[in-house]
Amino acid sequence: MNSPRVVCFGELLLRLGAPGHQLLLQSPFLEVHCGGAEANVGVSLAHFGHDVAMVSVVADNPLGAAVTGELRRHGVDTGRVRRAEGRMGLYFLTTGAGHRPSEVVYDRADSAFASARADSYDWPALLQGAQWLHLSGVSPALGPEAAQATLDAARAACALGIKVSFDGNFRPKLWERWGGDAKAILRDLFDCAHIVFADYRDIGVVLGGEFAQADAQARVDAAAAMAFAAFPRLQYMACTQRTAHSVGHHSIGAMLLGRDGTRTVAPVEELTDIIDRIGGGDAFAAGVLHGLIEGLDADTTLRFGLAAGCLKHSIPGDFNPVGVADVMALMGEGKFDVRR
Amino acid sequence: MNSPRVVCFGELLLRLGAPGHQLLLQSPFLEVHCGGAEANVGVSLAHFGHDVAMVSVVADNPLGAAVTGELRRHGVDTGRVRRAEGRMGLYFLTTGAGHRPSEVVYDRADSAFASARADSYDWPALLQGAQWLHLSGVSPALGPEAAQATLDAARAACALGIKVSFDGNFRPKLWERWGGDAKAILRDLFDCAHIVFADYRDIGVVLGGEFAQADAQARVDAAAAMAFAAFPRLQYMACTQRTAHSVGHHSIGAMLLGRDGTRTVAPVEELTDIIDRIGGGDAFAAGVLHGLIEGLDADTTLRFGLAAGCLKHSIPGDFNPVGVADVMALMGEGKFDVRR
Amino acid sequence: MNSPRVVCFGELLLRLGAPGHQLLLQSPFLEVHCGGAEANVGVSLAHFGHDVAMVSVVADNPLGAAVTGELRRHGVDTGRVRRAEGRMGLYFLTTGAGHRPSEVVYDRADSAFASARADSYDWPALLQGAQWLHLSGVSPALGPEAAQATLDAARAACALGIKVSFDGNFRPKLWERWGGDAKAILRDLFDCAHIVFADYRDIGVVLGGEFAQADAQARVDAAAAMAFAAFPRLQYMACTQRTAHSVGHHSIGAMLLGRDGTRTVAPVEELTDIIDRIGGGDAFAAGVLHGLIEGLDADTTLRFGLAAGCLKHSIPGDFNPVGVADVMALMGEGKFDVRR
Amino acid sequence: MNSPRVVCFGELLLRLGAPGHQLLLQSPFLEVHCGGAEANVGVSLAHFGHDVAMVSVVADNPLGAAVTGELRRHGVDTGRVRRAEGRMGLYFLTTGAGHRPSEVVYDRADSAFASARADSYDWPALLQGAQWLHLSGVSPALGPEAAQATLDAARAACALGIKVSFDGNFRPKLWERWGGDAKAILRDLFDCAHIVFADYRDIGVVLGGEFAQADAQARVDAAAAMAFAAFPRLQYMACTQRTAHSVGHHSIGAMLLGRDGTRTVAPVEELTDIIDRIGGGDAFAAGVLHGLIEGLDADTTLRFGLAAGCLKHSIPGDFNPVGVADVMALMGEGKFDVRR
Amino acid sequence: MNSPRVVCFGELLLRLGAPGHQLLLQSPFLEVHCGGAEANVGVSLAHFGHDVAMVSVVADNPLGAAVTGELRRHGVDTGRVRRAEGRMGLYFLTTGAGHRPSEVVYDRADSAFASARADSYDWPALLQGAQWLHLSGVSPALGPEAAQATLDAARAACALGIKVSFDGNFRPKLWERWGGDAKAILRDLFDCAHIVFADYRDIGVVLGGEFAQADAQARVDAAAAMAFAAFPRLQYMACTQRTAHSVGHHSIGAMLLGRDGTRTVAPVEELTDIIDRIGGGDAFAAGVLHGLIEGLDADTTLRFGLAAGCLKHSIPGDFNPVGVADVMALMGEGKFDVRR
Amino acid sequence: MNSPRVVCFGELLLRLGAPGHQLLLQSPFLEVHCGGAEANVGVSLAHFGHDVAMVSVVADNPLGAAVTGELRRHGVDTGRVRRAEGRMGLYFLTTGAGHRPSEVVYDRADSAFASARADSYDWPALLQGAQWLHLSGVSPALGPEAAQATLDAARAACALGIKVSFDGNFRPKLWERWGGDAKAILRDLFDCAHIVFADYRDIGVVLGGEFAQADAQARVDAAAAMAFAAFPRLQYMACTQRTAHSVGHHSIGAMLLGRDGTRTVAPVEELTDIIDRIGGGDAFAAGVLHGLIEGLDADTTLRFGLAAGCLKHSIPGDFNPVGVADVMALMGEGKFDVRR
Repeated sequence: MNSPRVVCFGELLLRLGAPGHQLLLQSPFLEVHCGGAEANVGVSLAHFGHDVAMVSVVADNPLGAAVTGELRRHGVDTGRVRRAEGRMGLYFLTTGAGHRPSEVVYDRADSAFASARADSYDWPALLQGAQWLHLSGVSPALGPEAAQATLDAARAACALGIKVSFDGNFRPKLWERWGGDAKAILRDLFDCAHIVFADYRDIGVVLGGEFAQADAQARVDAAAAMAFAAFPRLQYMACTQRTAHSVGHHSIGAMLLGRDGTRTVAPVEELTDIIDRIGGGDAFAAGVLHGLIEGLDADTTLRFGLAAGCLKHSIPGDFNPVGVADVMALMGEGKFDVRR
Repeated sequence: MNSPRVVCFGELLLRLGAPGHQLLLQSPFLEVHCGGAEANVGVSLAHFGHDVAMVSVVADNPLGAAVTGELRRHGVDTGRVRRAEGRMGLYFLTTGAGHRPSEVVYDRADSAFASARADSYDWPALLQGAQWLHLSGVSPALGPEAAQATLDAARAACALGIKVSFDGNFRPKLWERWGGDAKAILRDLFDCAHIVFADYRDIGVVLGGEFAQADAQARVDAAAAMAFAAFPRLQYMACTQRTAHSVGHHSIGAMLLGRDGTRTVAPVEELTDIIDRIGGGDAFAAGVLHGLIEGLDADTTLRFGLAAGCLKHSIPGDFNPVGVADVMALMGEGKFDVRR
Repeated sequence: MNSPRVVCFGELLLRLGAPGHQLLLQSPFLEVHCGGAEANVGVSLAHFGHDVAMVSVVADNPLGAAVTGELRRHGVDTGRVRRAEGRMGLYFLTTGAGHRPSEVVYDRADSAFASARADSYDWPALLQGAQWLHLSGVSPALGPEAAQATLDAARAACALGIKVSFDGNFRPKLWERWGGDAKAILRDLFDCAHIVFADYRDIGVVLGGEFAQADAQARVDAAAAMAFAAFPRLQYMACTQRTAHSVGHHSIGAMLLGRDGTRTVAPVEELTDIIDRIGGGDAFAAGVLHGLIEGLDADTTLRFGLAAGCLKHSIPGDFNPVGVADVMALMGEGKFDVRR
Repeated sequence: MNSPRVVCFGELLLRLGAPGHQLLLQSPFLEVHCGGAEANVGVSLAHFGHDVAMVSVVADNPLGAAVTGELRRHGVDTGRVRRAEGRMGLYFLTTGAGHRPSEVVYDRADSAFASARADSYDWPALLQGAQWLHLSGVSPALGPEAAQATLDAARAACALGIKVSFDGNFRPKLWERWGGDAKAILRDLFDCAHIVFADYRDIGVVLGGEFAQADAQARVDAAAAMAFAAFPRLQYMACTQRTAHSVGHHSIGAMLLGRDGTRTVAPVEELTDIIDRIGGGDAFAAGVLHGLIEGLDADTTLRFGLAAGCLKHSIPGDFNPVGVADVMALMGEGKFDVRR
Repeated sequence: MNSPRVVCFGELLLRLGAPGHQLLLQSPFLEVHCGGAEANVGVSLAHFGHDVAMVSVVADNPLGAAVTGELRRHGVDTGRVRRAEGRMGLYFLTTGAGHRPSEVVYDRADSAFASARADSYDWPALLQGAQWLHLSGVSPALGPEAAQATLDAARAACALGIKVSFDGNFRPKLWERWGGDAKAILRDLFDCAHIVFADYRDIGVVLGGEFAQADAQARVDAAAAMAFAAFPRLQYMACTQRTAHSVGHHSIGAMLLGRDGTRTVAPVEELTDIIDRIGGGDAFAAGVLHGLIEGLDADTTLRFGLAAGCLKHSIPGDFNPVGVADVMALMGEGKFDVRR
Repeated sequence: MNSPRVVCFGELLLRLGAPGHQLLLQSPFLEVHCGGAEANVGVSLAHFGHDVAMVSVVADNPLGAAVTGELRRHGVDTGRVRRAEGRMGLYFLTTGAGHRPSEVVYDRADSAFASARADSYDWPALLQGAQWLHLSGVSPALGPEAAQATLDAARAACALGIKVSFDGNFRPKLWERWGGDAKAILRDLFDCAHIVFADYRDIGVVLGGEFAQADAQARVDAAAAMAFAAFPRLQYMACTQRTAHSVGHHSIGAMLLGRDGTRTVAPVEELTDIIDRIGGGDAFAAGVLHGLIEGLDADTTLRFGLAAGCLKHSIPGDFNPVGVADVMALMGEGKFDVRR
């Protein structure tokens, strides 16, 4: 096994979507994409030129092999993806339009990943040589073993001096399924993090506060202050702010807050003609991580993240297979006529 | 045969459409949907949970069987759909975009439905147990037998105390084909109706008036007053008001007027990213009928109808297979981000 | 061979595009369209009812046969399209959306057309009976033989009293490939032209000026003045003015300037829901040529050209297969609801 | 609820298949069909003109609704199909060719059907008015509740004088998953059956015998003798005999044995150009049941069943939507040129 | 208008087929091909390098334009194809497999072609310069006007010394629709023919004989003798002899009989893996006509015809767009491995 | 870079194929597969579990990236695939059927691979740690630089004690394009080989002999004897023997001859229902190499190779993504019914 710069840990999912803007099974066809919050970040980082490895467990069948192959196609090292008895997590997507929201039907219970025992991972070996570990709040929500595995990963990374990036991604329905103590587990994960992708709602879940400020940015400011106070390892908190005017038209801005009090705000972008909104947050996270890894300044880092997130909305599928040059082009003049 | 709550009578059509935004036969493929003004209403009502039966005649061939099966798939009782010698009515659709309007080429002449003899329908049996009969102005325009059958159905319903809902749908080209006396026949049909879906143009055709008010709502008000005066059985008149800014962006409002002088106006909705505009009026009609059947108040009824009509514009095909919960969600907070 | 009214000379291309808004080879399918700047104009004119012949060279293989057949399908005479050893010029298209521009990857080097010897064309025979010859700046950019052939064609037309229309279409990358003297060759071509489709940038390339006026229309005015002075045969200069707000939303206006000082400006149109922007300029050129051929007045000519160009943006592919009636309908009331 | 002639009880499945002869996820598309051993029989019988109702449990989500709608499209009454929390059973199909066998990957564990409690079915109500109940060996293999429900159904039918047809369909892998006592449970089910679709292997599982005769027909004869002895209610045993020469070419014969000693053998058919072999056995079973229900003689019944089974191999999907006339045409002259 | 060597007269049809081996509307897609018995022959001859013009009438709508354009794409002159009010003739195709025959559902009644008045054709002008006129027995079966037009065409050709080739194509269902005197009309058409594509059944219809010979070739011999006796202008009779072992496997042979007593028999070919059998007879006819036009000897002519017919079975659609070289390659060594 | 066990060197190609059995561009769609003789072998070996790296040069554009990603998806290390200016080699495929052979149109001239300078490869570094190098006769045929690079690779491997496997793949058309001395260059390559995949025709090209034995196996025997005599390093010669009865039905056998006089013949397999014949020879070669690498006996090795080759014919695309278990299953009982 190589020594990758970034390790991502999480479940790999197959997305089965109705074609175009059809309702699910309106016609008897499904379009398949691969996804998973952490894999989405890993694929983005690989397209940005980073050495990325995925740690996961997939079903030992053609579906598991397909997802693994797809990650590899995007340049992610899959040598740490294990095959095991069981099923792949699936989700069914109906893409909305106009006044009809997109709709996700999850079918991910009892997947090979969710069922994998926490002690089946040898974290020191899996993390060897890494500088970053990316986790999200989806994995610990999948069940006790996955929660323990995520905690083990985060703690091993901390112990090894590997920076942990953590995307809040709070999913109450998943936690309720098995009665996990979301607050306690997420708090332990936040405690290991170098950067969290989270807004005031996530902080509210973890630290118990309520943020009643009228202004959205003020709520984030307050939540960040509380988070930096509670988690001494935490250096950054980043989030997007989204308003959905219709299914095809959103406005999106972003903030990056530093422990040192730096506070960066990226101007709001108008996303019209949205093709695929899934994975937009992961694309943003990957863009911000790229900035941190490359040592870009805060403003460039945040604008890179937001531009990466904007591009994602124009691309079918969960992944955001754009390169640094594509993002830079948008951050630059941002010309929208045909490139020849 | 069960006793359905609602009976719809009209022609079933096959729509053969160019894929995506292609011109007709630009590539050698056609996408097929089932439709027909009255069937569209029936399918909507079935998805709203009502017990609906269709009365129609289809070609005794695989096309007729396919349309019948599709209605059944959507929960409409097809036990009253008869097979007969002849052809299915077709229409070819080119979906427009931007500055290019969608275009319908009809190929429905001499269909099995249009050729079916009026005396081949046993209305008391077909309507047995029903509370509502839904008709439209398309059927009587198809030829003398279809006109007679529509009149027979309406009169039988009246005689049996079944409420008739009638969608004006005035199609001069069809009437001209066989020289039918549209004014007289439609007048007799309006005379049986409990509710008409019609605007001032329809009333103008039937009652001969001209409505020159500058304001569109005022024209409708005047037409409704004239209609309630002319047709003592008529309790409601409902219509939408549409402005097409481009093929993909319409504004749509709605009005519901009662014999008792109630006058309800629903606020205008902006329809952007329109996927499929066909059947929008039928979806509105079905929504309003749902409100009347369920005894909702006028405002809720009209807003339900308009929301149903809005949703239709986001769904490929003539049918509007959304449930009450979908419509209520839009009437409520109307959130447009992904539902998980 | 018939005697066509209009002869177009240029390369025929196959466009291989990713389906929908996918990235290139995101899924293993390509959609094929035929194109080429001059062929696009020829196809438009044929759909406007003109007698058009194409002069070109295609590969003597099924690809060359397919492109030729496709031109024929659109009513263009292909009796002057020669088959020769070699390959077809290709281009790969990724259609953008939102913030992601469309992208063209050319694979047209060493095509049968680019390799055809200039002396293999018998221009007096090929132009016999024609009233117009349409050329563009793409052909001479393809290599020395193609440049010479284009010059020969233009000069033969001049000598025979055939009006030459020339679309600037300056492509620096192509000229650089073989080190051609773009300025000199284009100057000779402009010198033969009755009308040029060009804006101030093209004139700047050919005549060396810089146009620093703040106002875009003023820059075009100045460039036109310089062009009419430099090229005594030139009667008209026409161009569009485009602003791309996003990939799916452009604003587009147009100007037509006459040697006699007439100056026509068409009001800006908002192009939303753009389906396919490729060939928009060629559709405009064809519309303007239609006006000139038919002797329409300048205003109608320019508005016809702009309306034709607008319609093109709603149609997949490089061609603009709309008829005069379609364009007139848009120039008239411009109704955007379904046409039945 | 109507009183159907035939009730089928079993799980409804969604099949997600790779298009054409591709490997699974070789391209990112899946074709969807509905199936389930008992539903396949029900759909066939409905197309043969019988009044059929399905008893099942589906997931309360768009997938469950889609399968239910599809059954309805084929004329099966779905009023007894219940919606419940949980997931739909899925299977993934890779269609083979030549030397590469088709391959099924099941993903049906923990489905809403398998999880439904046995006591949630009110069999006397569900079976009211029925003359036949069709079951298969798949249902009891799905888990203890499904096994109990199947037994309850069979016993209720026996008690009500409803004839039970039972298709052996022994699936060791499913039984092993939960450690069910296949032998005992299947024995109880065989004991209720009027007809079993089973060959000597099934009988061997249930009654413990080994059938070592060299001749396949002799093995079936011996098994049938043992079955008639063991199960006094059993009147018929039917089975096909299949030899797969390649994936696309099978030979198929059939036998029908009666308690009264009648022994009918249908001549072997050569199935070339096989399009879809899934559901072939169910189509045969439905054909034989049609013969028994209609009171056809044994020879016609068996040949009808085999012809129905043959036709299934030419039709994509699990269902066999052919009518009596189609089967009769094949049993008759069996002409293979285009029917106009 | 050019002076074509061959003129074909007949209806142009659109074929709407279920994709792959699906049943009609099993999924909501149709694949479109253009056809028509005489157009099929014309397209083949154009691909063999002959100058061919079609005389027909199509609907004045996008469907008519599409069929006309498709003919043009294949190199057939469409200057004699008139547009008129009315509808296009359609047929729906379900492609069979194995034991399930392909099935055609016609929807061609009342087409623009069938409705065109016989006196709307100016035959001397339409046939000017032609050496051959190709007709079939389908056209006169469409109705009295079409019958008269076909007779007019044949007689005009005779009068002008143009050779008439006539393909029997007896369709009793079409004749019955309008009660036409098939025997008399076909007899008049046979009487004008230089060559008929007909077997003993066609001759039986026209001349009233019965051919009871056990051997199929003997029946053809007898019929030919009777035909040459009855029709003094007739020089050749040609036919194929087909046995359908299954839908995908036919055996096909052919005979060519001359007035001079020459009798050529082509050896039987095994057609396995049949892709599309429609148009096979027309492809054979075109091949034989090519031989006669080119003056090939009888044996080469017949083998060319049969090879062309064989190739057609491997090509989707009604047309047979293969060139002389393709046919010659098959007649030569007939190698079946990949050609590079 | 890892140290792979097997290194493959050759051009990567994109195949653009007409869908199904359509003619090229009969409809405007192309299906894309990746290929290249040596890459095909590499992908097979990766699926057999070997550590494989590709050495190649691709265009520095999205097409090159796509092919590289596809190799990676199949588990081949692409760290040695270089991006360079230029174009990708393409080929267009029309899949035949019945009597119509498949047809390849190459468009690979002047590719980035063919243009790469021989001295741009650092063979000792590229081959480091490898045990096998796989080459074919296609690469040296592409031009002088590619020929020199292939020779350099082979000689470097010999010098490093790496076993060279060489697939003859003689392509006269490619050699003629640039006038390369095929005989001399291939002779030098054979001289480096441990195993050649070649039959008597290849040996005839290289060593000049003619093999006139009536029996095909005898011709191979004689050629092998001559080859072992001429090339002292050569240990094995292997080949298939194919007879194409029709496009969809081939017979295929195989031979493996050893320097030690061992002579293994695998029994002929009947390949019916052929889906995709391209890459069949490469799949065979990969299977034989697997046997040699794993140290299997000659008979198992040859039968493994032939079984792998047979499976390839059932899989769309150039690659043969089957595992050892799939091949073993076919070599074992070879059951052709559905695997569940």
